[in-house]
Amino acid sequence: MKNILLKISYDGTEFCGWQRQPKDRTVQGELEGSLSQLFGEPMQVSGTSRTDAGVHAHGQQANFLVETPIPLERMKMVINNRLPADIRIREAVEVPSDFHARFSCKGKKYIYKVMNTEEVDVFDRNYSYHVSHTLNTDQMTEAARWMEGRHDFKSFMAMGSNVPESTERTIYSLKLISDPSKHCMEIHVIGDGFLYNMVRIIAGTLIDVGTGRMKPDHVKAIIEAKDRSKAGHTAPPQGLYLSEIYFDERDLPGKEKK
Amino acid sequence: MKNILLKISYDGTEFCGWQRQPKDRTVQGELEGSLSQLFGEPMQVSGTSRTDAGVHAHGQQANFLVETPIPLERMKMVINNRLPADIRIREAVEVPSDFHARFSCKGKKYIYKVMNTEEVDVFDRNYSYHVSHTLNTDQMTEAARWMEGRHDFKSFMAMGSNVPESTERTIYSLKLISDPSKHCMEIHVIGDGFLYNMVRIIAGTLIDVGTGRMKPDHVKAIIEAKDRSKAGHTAPPQGLYLSEIYFDERDLPGKEKK
Repeated sequence: MKNILLKISYDGTEFCGWQRQPKDRTVQGELEGSLSQLFGEPMQVSGTSRTDAGVHAHGQQANFLVETPIPLERMKMVINNRLPADIRIREAVEVPSDFHARFSCKGKKYIYKVMNTEEVDVFDRNYSYHVSHTLNTDQMTEAARWMEGRHDFKSFMAMGSNVPESTERTIYSLKLISDPSKHCMEIHVIGDGFLYNMVRIIAGTLIDVGTGRMKPDHVKAIIEAKDRSKAGHTAPPQGLYLSEIYFDERDLPGKEKK
Repeated sequence: MKNILLKISYDGTEFCGWQRQPKDRTVQGELEGSLSQLFGEPMQVSGTSRTDAGVHAHGQQANFLVETPIPLERMKMVINNRLPADIRIREAVEVPSDFHARFSCKGKKYIYKVMNTEEVDVFDRNYSYHVSHTLNTDQMTEAARWMEGRHDFKSFMAMGSNVPESTERTIYSLKLISDPSKHCMEIHVIGDGFLYNMVRIIAGTLIDVGTGRMKPDHVKAIIEAKDRSKAGHTAPPQGLYLSEIYFDERDLPGKEKK
């Protein structure tokens, strides 16, 4: 039995998210369907992140167990040949039998894309958040600094979601990368894990700071309140990209390999 | 009665082309539907170019006649409010009563986008032509030079299409713009008019030169043959963008305003 780990990119536009559902088209559902066809038996994959409808991925990872004569070096190609065009396998590697994409995950990187133009560009509408109000990046950078580190992020968790045992998370790095010539801003966030909608609420809160609706140091009070209603709005899904999964703690910022 | 000229961008992915059809979703059909709702009577628009299914536009133009109290400065916004998200009006201006977008057109610019990477990127699949073979841009530039000028472009017209009175056309400018850091190449072509599939056959022929399947100076023989089977392949629709319409000859390259 081989344990195969896949690195996956997908355009989330036409999916009802990652997680398999009885009727709706999902990434996990399509992937399992293609693998089941390929291997001639019902296949199940385990992904690191259950991304929402409309959310994209460059670096989702998922593993599955299979008994197959297909050599590893051909695996990526034969899977891609069966997948719909909006999902692509970027890498396929063999991992130890006890490796589990979800439980072995030590951290994740998400990128949130903002287009800061007066009018929405028809080609960006599914791939970024269009904000027409001018954004003050200095203020946003200051606000981001308050979010870095280990905090109880309960204020940044969607209301009505299942509350996990702990709502403490560590943000190792939260950076704004701005390209004014393209009116484009990216929010890069690396953490040990994220609560439901946490990255989108972080992005929405930073944008509320950028448009002047909130002061940067108000973030401190938001965190202390442990109350979702105190944080900013939830930025829409189409700006969000699952960018990278870290299985080795030493790949995380501030925990570099010695 | 006002004669309104619209500058339109659309993402061609979900459309069966520009031209109105009884059943299929088309850009003209959606636009006329929205305008008919807005003005409370059946509206017809006349566009400069009947782009094919999957072809995009930044700069399509179309005009329509209407009796309306809506002031011109609000026209763009009220139309956009009714249009689906994959069509956007970029400008609305009033033109003389005898102006007709199609017959008043003196030239057009198309851009053809090529992604030259080993593997297709899931986010580019509907917005460029993926070519994995290395492209020799010097050879392509040389081939492009043979195409510029006034020629009989019969070899660059889709087989089976209605042959117009004349298949002579002028290409004012044909340029390759390469961004190796992004593995992206754009073919920019400006002409007085284009035969059916002409830009896609030009792009396919240039790519055949770039991959070494044809010599650059073979383009001369292709033009002289007046035979579609001599030219290169037809590049797929999703790389093509209708970029600009020229209503004034003096805006065309080589015919600049004095």
